[in-house]
Amino acid sequence: MSQKVVLAFSGGLDTSFCVKYLTEDRGLEVHSVLVDTGGFSEAELKAIEERAYSLGVKSHATVSKTDEYYQHCLKFLVFGNVLKNNTYPLSVSAERFFQAIAAGEYAREIGASAIAHGSTGAGNDQVRFDMAFRILAPEAEIITPIRDLRLSREAEIEYLKSKGVDQEWHKAAYSINKGLWGTSVGGKETLTSDQYLPESAWPTQVTETTPKTITLHFEHGELKGIDDEQFGNPVGAIQKLTALAGPYGIGRDIHVGDTIIGIKGRVGFEAPAPLIIIKAHHTLEKHVLTKHQLTWKEQLGNFYGTMLHEGQFLDPVMRNIETFLADTQAHVTGKVHVQLDPYRFTVLGIESPFDLMSSKFGSYGEMNNAWTGEDVRGFSKVASNQVMIYERIKG
Amino acid sequence: MSQKVVLAFSGGLDTSFCVKYLTEDRGLEVHSVLVDTGGFSEAELKAIEERAYSLGVKSHATVSKTDEYYQHCLKFLVFGNVLKNNTYPLSVSAERFFQAIAAGEYAREIGASAIAHGSTGAGNDQVRFDMAFRILAPEAEIITPIRDLRLSREAEIEYLKSKGVDQEWHKAAYSINKGLWGTSVGGKETLTSDQYLPESAWPTQVTETTPKTITLHFEHGELKGIDDEQFGNPVGAIQKLTALAGPYGIGRDIHVGDTIIGIKGRVGFEAPAPLIIIKAHHTLEKHVLTKHQLTWKEQLGNFYGTMLHEGQFLDPVMRNIETFLADTQAHVTGKVHVQLDPYRFTVLGIESPFDLMSSKFGSYGEMNNAWTGEDVRGFSKVASNQVMIYERIKG
Amino acid sequence: MSQKVVLAFSGGLDTSFCVKYLTEDRGLEVHSVLVDTGGFSEAELKAIEERAYSLGVKSHATVSKTDEYYQHCLKFLVFGNVLKNNTYPLSVSAERFFQAIAAGEYAREIGASAIAHGSTGAGNDQVRFDMAFRILAPEAEIITPIRDLRLSREAEIEYLKSKGVDQEWHKAAYSINKGLWGTSVGGKETLTSDQYLPESAWPTQVTETTPKTITLHFEHGELKGIDDEQFGNPVGAIQKLTALAGPYGIGRDIHVGDTIIGIKGRVGFEAPAPLIIIKAHHTLEKHVLTKHQLTWKEQLGNFYGTMLHEGQFLDPVMRNIETFLADTQAHVTGKVHVQLDPYRFTVLGIESPFDLMSSKFGSYGEMNNAWTGEDVRGFSKVASNQVMIYERIKG
Amino acid sequence: MSQKVVLAFSGGLDTSFCVKYLTEDRGLEVHSVLVDTGGFSEAELKAIEERAYSLGVKSHATVSKTDEYYQHCLKFLVFGNVLKNNTYPLSVSAERFFQAIAAGEYAREIGASAIAHGSTGAGNDQVRFDMAFRILAPEAEIITPIRDLRLSREAEIEYLKSKGVDQEWHKAAYSINKGLWGTSVGGKETLTSDQYLPESAWPTQVTETTPKTITLHFEHGELKGIDDEQFGNPVGAIQKLTALAGPYGIGRDIHVGDTIIGIKGRVGFEAPAPLIIIKAHHTLEKHVLTKHQLTWKEQLGNFYGTMLHEGQFLDPVMRNIETFLADTQAHVTGKVHVQLDPYRFTVLGIESPFDLMSSKFGSYGEMNNAWTGEDVRGFSKVASNQVMIYERIKG
Repeated sequence: MSQKVVLAFSGGLDTSFCVKYLTEDRGLEVHSVLVDTGGFSEAELKAIEERAYSLGVKSHATVSKTDEYYQHCLKFLVFGNVLKNNTYPLSVSAERFFQAIAAGEYAREIGASAIAHGSTGAGNDQVRFDMAFRILAPEAEIITPIRDLRLSREAEIEYLKSKGVDQEWHKAAYSINKGLWGTSVGGKETLTSDQYLPESAWPTQVTETTPKTITLHFEHGELKGIDDEQFGNPVGAIQKLTALAGPYGIGRDIHVGDTIIGIKGRVGFEAPAPLIIIKAHHTLEKHVLTKHQLTWKEQLGNFYGTMLHEGQFLDPVMRNIETFLADTQAHVTGKVHVQLDPYRFTVLGIESPFDLMSSKFGSYGEMNNAWTGEDVRGFSKVASNQVMIYERIKG
Repeated sequence: MSQKVVLAFSGGLDTSFCVKYLTEDRGLEVHSVLVDTGGFSEAELKAIEERAYSLGVKSHATVSKTDEYYQHCLKFLVFGNVLKNNTYPLSVSAERFFQAIAAGEYAREIGASAIAHGSTGAGNDQVRFDMAFRILAPEAEIITPIRDLRLSREAEIEYLKSKGVDQEWHKAAYSINKGLWGTSVGGKETLTSDQYLPESAWPTQVTETTPKTITLHFEHGELKGIDDEQFGNPVGAIQKLTALAGPYGIGRDIHVGDTIIGIKGRVGFEAPAPLIIIKAHHTLEKHVLTKHQLTWKEQLGNFYGTMLHEGQFLDPVMRNIETFLADTQAHVTGKVHVQLDPYRFTVLGIESPFDLMSSKFGSYGEMNNAWTGEDVRGFSKVASNQVMIYERIKG
Repeated sequence: MSQKVVLAFSGGLDTSFCVKYLTEDRGLEVHSVLVDTGGFSEAELKAIEERAYSLGVKSHATVSKTDEYYQHCLKFLVFGNVLKNNTYPLSVSAERFFQAIAAGEYAREIGASAIAHGSTGAGNDQVRFDMAFRILAPEAEIITPIRDLRLSREAEIEYLKSKGVDQEWHKAAYSINKGLWGTSVGGKETLTSDQYLPESAWPTQVTETTPKTITLHFEHGELKGIDDEQFGNPVGAIQKLTALAGPYGIGRDIHVGDTIIGIKGRVGFEAPAPLIIIKAHHTLEKHVLTKHQLTWKEQLGNFYGTMLHEGQFLDPVMRNIETFLADTQAHVTGKVHVQLDPYRFTVLGIESPFDLMSSKFGSYGEMNNAWTGEDVRGFSKVASNQVMIYERIKG
Repeated sequence: MSQKVVLAFSGGLDTSFCVKYLTEDRGLEVHSVLVDTGGFSEAELKAIEERAYSLGVKSHATVSKTDEYYQHCLKFLVFGNVLKNNTYPLSVSAERFFQAIAAGEYAREIGASAIAHGSTGAGNDQVRFDMAFRILAPEAEIITPIRDLRLSREAEIEYLKSKGVDQEWHKAAYSINKGLWGTSVGGKETLTSDQYLPESAWPTQVTETTPKTITLHFEHGELKGIDDEQFGNPVGAIQKLTALAGPYGIGRDIHVGDTIIGIKGRVGFEAPAPLIIIKAHHTLEKHVLTKHQLTWKEQLGNFYGTMLHEGQFLDPVMRNIETFLADTQAHVTGKVHVQLDPYRFTVLGIESPFDLMSSKFGSYGEMNNAWTGEDVRGFSKVASNQVMIYERIKG
């Protein structure tokens, strides 16, 4: 009986090569798995399954993890207003690690003695898969044919042809990763430091040019409604907002950052829903949270994003931080008005029963009902005591 | 001989009232001072001086502090990529404190026994003036007529009329503060949480609609050139960029934040140069600094901005942080290409001799020349050791 | 009918003065309250009550808050290993704020229109009382006779004598505050920077000289047993440990720190139980928590201590941090062996089912079962990539 | 001509094995180097050199780096009050990385094409050597015989015997590393979690029992004098203090921490000078620095220590932090009085011209000359505004 291997399968050239290589050259029984985190249509899932069987897998499983992905990860990226380097909503980083976790758990479930992924040796994903597999299925051997064999694209195609798989492998100008939390676009210009992506490279082309105002409804930090439509599950709201704002060309940018392996990487992305949700949510928080809550949320949110990016999502400190972030959302409830224009959006304002900017107590620059000028004079005096003394002492 | 008082004078209703009140009701000898940090034209400075004398000051001084303001403050706001709450470049906060410092030093210089400012009891500026004066001139009495008397605008006008000052005091719809580092716009909609400023409220109207690409030249973190024009002094580059980008309506937003006195405040601003410079500078840094440099710069920059905002600029920790920030800029040299479009701008890319994204060592997702797949496998293993053990132990 | 005032009463000279002054000079109906947080014996509580009535209060209440104090505050000081400036367990800061909260709530409960405390204008306690009262009973007037009248001790005694209170007011050489979480000792030497307290000044004299080894049992971060004795309530364990270790002279030091009002303050303390518990707890954590958990706990714990010290305990961020800290304690269960010697203690070692220092996976410097040397070589390579590239690029 | 290899040589069993193995089995030309950072006597250095030649090295070099070690590292550990996990002064971590740097530079200097170290695969030192060598001499092959061959101690002895090296290899009960910044003691008890080192295991036995008071003189944060003796070079002061305090058994403890490779490690240490210097220096700082300076120094100091521990000393952020730390020391000048007792020391007090605890402005709990009670009342009111509003709004 041959050894069972679970392969994280996407249907592309690299993982197709892996099926053949693992089956025929390594003599393993391949069980492919595709983890759906909201980035695939039914038709795409079906096509991938068919390709897997046609390549000769023993079984193929589609594991649906969209809700878990939202509940155990995206939710906290919103709570923490997480934008890596103040720019990138971690569209791919988050998704890939969740897929790795699910594949690792699947391997454990079906009792596989090995687990394979098709990553090359040049990116972040290899580390995410390696780490998730090692932590969740430490006894399983990790097999990485593409990384180990260092084959060129042409050599992979040649190999597959030799095994009777003679199809057209379309070489796209850009490598595109589409997911619930945004789409990444890499290639050509992003391999340089000085070039920007051309209009044609963006997956969603601009077809909407009429400005529109929408209202987002947040409950305890979660997006539960858009205009008059309520969503029991925020996943639906994210998809709706993507459909609304995407055709405006909103949410595009290029992220430059540190990869886990120490080199700098650059990648384009379009993420209309994440960018709108995070800025709207953050603005609401600026009205309902105290200064210290905002400060600590920012620090912990940034750290959370970096750990997620670097494949350290399973460290228990991440659960502790999630507890903190969730606890801060008690009053993050209200409406946020947002205007959509081509290529940009504007957060217009918020309404919340917990808004601390209440004119009952005073208005900035206008009135003060809760204190007197004399109180502020005393405040300023005491607040400057230490530096006043310092200046005298230093002589 | 009557007692000398220095008055921070702007020529508006409040400080005009102060001149008369201090002179006639309090019997003091008023020496008005206006601190120019780059927000006034020659004609405006002249007009303010004339008004001061016409109101009866004993002397009026215009203290020019634009270069000091850049060298001792704005420079570090760029080095630290400081945007309060990820939004606001501290256009007013920084300037006001610098003006307070200069007024305090002027009072000490001319041997004034008192020092006055025209702030109300409802904003941040009163604390900034109070603190700067107390730290720099602790023996001087601080007099704050507007705050203490709690007079309405109408009462002030009435008082001035009774003293023979019978001019038209234009009540603008919005209170506007124009400075080198941006213009703030407060009033009406900003007093609510849910309204945005109308197009007509923005001081600079949109007159440019043709997209344009410009190149910013940074040397050790400072903006020293735009396209082919070199600036010995970055102040000139800031003014030039404001002139270039302002007519596009770039750099507008509304900031919601915590005032020093504990209430929430909301203010509109247009700050095209600060927003472009900071995003361009930050992008350049993402290419030339290490991950840990970026992380610490962000933390220290945020803290620096908060302290400046809160009138704590004179704490010696601020000097220590400036030393840190300056030390990080050794390699922040290069060009940044930026595209200007109506209401928005895009950082297109950078060029730098210190760019760490060099393909000599590997390209993200493409090649790796400086390590092997086997090395990364080892890295992943060791990097997951602790959590792997944690998972085993927790059972 | 005269106005009701609640007075936080301790029975000392200052608050005795307040009773007479509020009753007779101000014509108020005084309701004194003493909040017991574990620092008083039954006899002491009784004596204070009698003194209150003898001075003429309308009512006196003893509010017992020891358990709440532990559950809502001390517990988190242990979870966070909180030592202000790495030295001081916040013996007084924590207790005083809890007393202020309880007094504020009592005032609200009995419908008092004013609330008084006997603090002077030179310390931290005045701010703690002011802030707690303002937040919890914002409509109540806050009356502070000692601070406002700036009376000398002699003048207070004179005044009381004139009102028929002619007792001996013992002027202790040191001001001593005894509480569940330690005893502070201030006066004489602590008013200078260069003197240490003499042996005789310490409230607990050294009477034990025989070394003893004890075992502390922690459950989810809480001290639940000492040697063979189990404590349902950790308050009992704290008291027992104080009784055991105090006579060794353990836990003495002088704390120098920043007061809320900007000056430096110096105070001696003896806090055997807090210092032993925190070091024992921290050592246990070093064995059972991950590196990142330890790092964040330290930062949040330090901030929590500073906020508590500065009277900001009621900021909602404190509740968020408590949630975080509690969540980290899931595995902080085990035994810690401690040796007591005169003037010092030693944490000998720990035992825990969650100890991550398990030789199954490798022993530091001895064996490695969970990785190979080749893995570490790869780790080192990848971990040095960025700086290696940096060194090449900088040329 | 055979290939040149530089070997970091200590004269112990492991590196002795390396000489023979590299020379005879690998046919390399071995150039041994010992980096002296203050932990060796002249006689020891001489003996090591003789052993190297007797084993057959082509050349042996003793590189003296004690001053550089202090100037480029230890100084900043004092400025930052660095105690890993609040306990351990990084006695070995710092020294080892400095030795690795010097060995790497030596390899580059003599044009070696390979560089070897004798670390096993189970500790931190392997990573430090790997990283320093890769960053400073990236073209050189790194050879690690002990780690790669995984030989037992017995097998190494057997091999050496077979090569004619037939000496007594004393197996000490404890592995001891003696250096300028403390001595580490590992073995037996430290391999468990629950045992403490016995009295006999400590390298310095307790021979002094008479309490003694000494005065440390700091200039800009550096220890420049002890009692009446001035030291041009703080290295001499560290050595003198070690000689003074060591015989009291001061500065012993066990450190438990996270190794670079993810497991927990435990090690005993005696470090009298570092512990006394750091506590004395920190106490002086509490008197002369502002609250915010203390807070940031702590955060940056902790991070600095962790990076140094983990072999990341060459990251440029470390230079930036050193600049920050040095800049904070301008006023850290004064005397600190310390009492030495068997097994413990007490910081008695400080004297400094820059002491901010000056009674001119007020004494904690006693007097206030620089503000009034009314000022503090205003301060408390404004400082509680936000939470007061929060409590009202939350309803």
